[in-house]
Amino acid sequence: MQVEPQTFDRVLSSMCTEPHPDARTAAERFLATNPGDPGTYPTVTELEEEAVSMLGEIAGLDSPAGYVASGGTEANIQAVRIARDRFESRTSNRVGDHTPNRNERSTPNVVMPESGHFSFQKAANVLGVELRIVPTDDDHRADLEAVRHSVDDRTALVVGVAGTTEYGRVDPIPELGEIARSVDALFHVDAAWGGFVLPFTDYEWNFSHAPVDTMAIDPHKMGQAAVPAGGLLAREETLLDELAIDTPYLESTSQATLTGTRSGAGVASAVAAMEALWPGGYQRQYARSQHNADWLADALVARGFEVVEPTLPLVAADVPVSTFDSLRREGWRISRTATGEMRIVCMPHVTRSMLEAFVADLDRLQCRASVPVVSDD
Amino acid sequence: MQVEPQTFDRVLSSMCTEPHPDARTAAERFLATNPGDPGTYPTVTELEEEAVSMLGEIAGLDSPAGYVASGGTEANIQAVRIARDRFESRTSNRVGDHTPNRNERSTPNVVMPESGHFSFQKAANVLGVELRIVPTDDDHRADLEAVRHSVDDRTALVVGVAGTTEYGRVDPIPELGEIARSVDALFHVDAAWGGFVLPFTDYEWNFSHAPVDTMAIDPHKMGQAAVPAGGLLAREETLLDELAIDTPYLESTSQATLTGTRSGAGVASAVAAMEALWPGGYQRQYARSQHNADWLADALVARGFEVVEPTLPLVAADVPVSTFDSLRREGWRISRTATGEMRIVCMPHVTRSMLEAFVADLDRLQCRASVPVVSDD
Repeated sequence: MQVEPQTFDRVLSSMCTEPHPDARTAAERFLATNPGDPGTYPTVTELEEEAVSMLGEIAGLDSPAGYVASGGTEANIQAVRIARDRFESRTSNRVGDHTPNRNERSTPNVVMPESGHFSFQKAANVLGVELRIVPTDDDHRADLEAVRHSVDDRTALVVGVAGTTEYGRVDPIPELGEIARSVDALFHVDAAWGGFVLPFTDYEWNFSHAPVDTMAIDPHKMGQAAVPAGGLLAREETLLDELAIDTPYLESTSQATLTGTRSGAGVASAVAAMEALWPGGYQRQYARSQHNADWLADALVARGFEVVEPTLPLVAADVPVSTFDSLRREGWRISRTATGEMRIVCMPHVTRSMLEAFVADLDRLQCRASVPVVSDD
Repeated sequence: MQVEPQTFDRVLSSMCTEPHPDARTAAERFLATNPGDPGTYPTVTELEEEAVSMLGEIAGLDSPAGYVASGGTEANIQAVRIARDRFESRTSNRVGDHTPNRNERSTPNVVMPESGHFSFQKAANVLGVELRIVPTDDDHRADLEAVRHSVDDRTALVVGVAGTTEYGRVDPIPELGEIARSVDALFHVDAAWGGFVLPFTDYEWNFSHAPVDTMAIDPHKMGQAAVPAGGLLAREETLLDELAIDTPYLESTSQATLTGTRSGAGVASAVAAMEALWPGGYQRQYARSQHNADWLADALVARGFEVVEPTLPLVAADVPVSTFDSLRREGWRISRTATGEMRIVCMPHVTRSMLEAFVADLDRLQCRASVPVVSDD
């Protein structure tokens, strides 16, 4: 196989990054292990317990329940599944669990701001729940009044996002948690991307700040672990027990997951990354990334673009389609929001000089675009 | 992080193995790539197309649809999901797809032999379908009459296993396919483990032998790729389109999967392994593994154990619990079937000398067990 992966030097679109060197080493060392088979691979099984413990520390939770998932999508799907099954136990009068029979009841719903990740749409489709998508406010955050109007007595779960995919916004997490409580719904925070930078901000986003039941928090995003290493945390074991199949309690984490065989490389790399970087390394990286995002935002504002001011290391700006396409043709990996803005994620591998080169190319391509071209260009 | 994973030299319980050297190299090279984000990682996205094409060649299917999944569990869950959604489209008179409303209809069912993997129980739980588990015959294969009696007009899917988890049996695949056809159900073959050895046998197991609609076939098992690299194949794109969310056709494979971010390392290692080993290397490995299984079976028979004669490289025998536990204490990773037999999988890393050492330990521990012990032993 003679191909090489592209380098990271023009990647501005990804929420993943180069793994930390210790994480890479650990991934390679544990490549041939499977935490989905604890009887055969006890070492990596213990490492997973360590990973969950460290994720709990980051997310403000002593004695966390949880596991290292394939990614944030699995974590989010499982959170909806926990909520669906908790809701059905709470409201059902059926005996036994073998034949899920939703005939006589109407569908439970999940309420989420429109900034929520596509994985919740997958979850609703897979799990047979209704997804109520609620508009965000002018600052791209969950609109609390709209959420209050959307929840009802069939709401199984309210979702808040701590570091949104498109704009890097943090929803009003404590208030969303209260709305969930008011209708006896569970409350899930999607901090898949934000979880490793938010500890160094003033935002209230985690288990210690709000009545959070479950959380997605991914080592393989800002955590600098290798893919695949997502994280699902739950406030207590009884929440994870909702994922048990044919037994009242989980006999092993492996029964709970959406996978069978799992990547020991991901688990080991998560532990190695967190050991190397929490908290000081992550704090320094957050500062660098935020400064880079602020620098980029300023550079774009100075050039006359309308910029969504970054509250986390993520910048969106109304760069015209033609310029966007030209930049992509130059090899820049950039992405777009649903409303057409250019979106750049300042991950650990994104350096100031990368951004300077990017802005230089932007200038060059903007000039070219504004000069009438002869047809043979 | 100062721990080391255990070595493979006593692992007899796993359906995973050491990755082929080319697969390991590819995994390390592509560790920081994500085929779930094709716009950012085009190289590994192309590699995935190659992987699917090669899996199709192995499974007797030109122009396969499919993708590299997190593992066989995801492939099996998705097969059930395809069948559920196909069934509901076929039998529903509802307009639109946003609010799955199963109120007025009774639950679709999936019919599977009891040898089917636990992932189908997860699938039924997650997807809200009824799982009908049908007894196997005296040779641990699907009992066709029992399957015929179990299917009805609400059967969405019939499952056959090509290489069962506990006994390495191959179900009568063509006949099961006909039963599925007879009730307009889809037919899924779980060849997650068997798919890389069955091409070298006389069994009829794949798309060219039977009316198979979907198949699980995992490079990270007998395929010698790195974890995570499972495989889902579908006879045609329209089957995968059942996984589309809010659109009539899949706009990208990534929309279909149960994950978001995915492992480029797994995809690249799958291609590298198949390039290095298909077909000659896999054929030679199958012959070695099958000879090892036959040797082990003979050795156990000679020692008076009742052995389930291996039809594929997997051996089960009625070794007593005490001996089993003693062997585990000696560091041997061995597993048990649901009915208590010791089960050993002759994967590529399992050598004849490993098995000779195992049998020597078995002899030593059996002798010790049959000699009355003084209480201070």
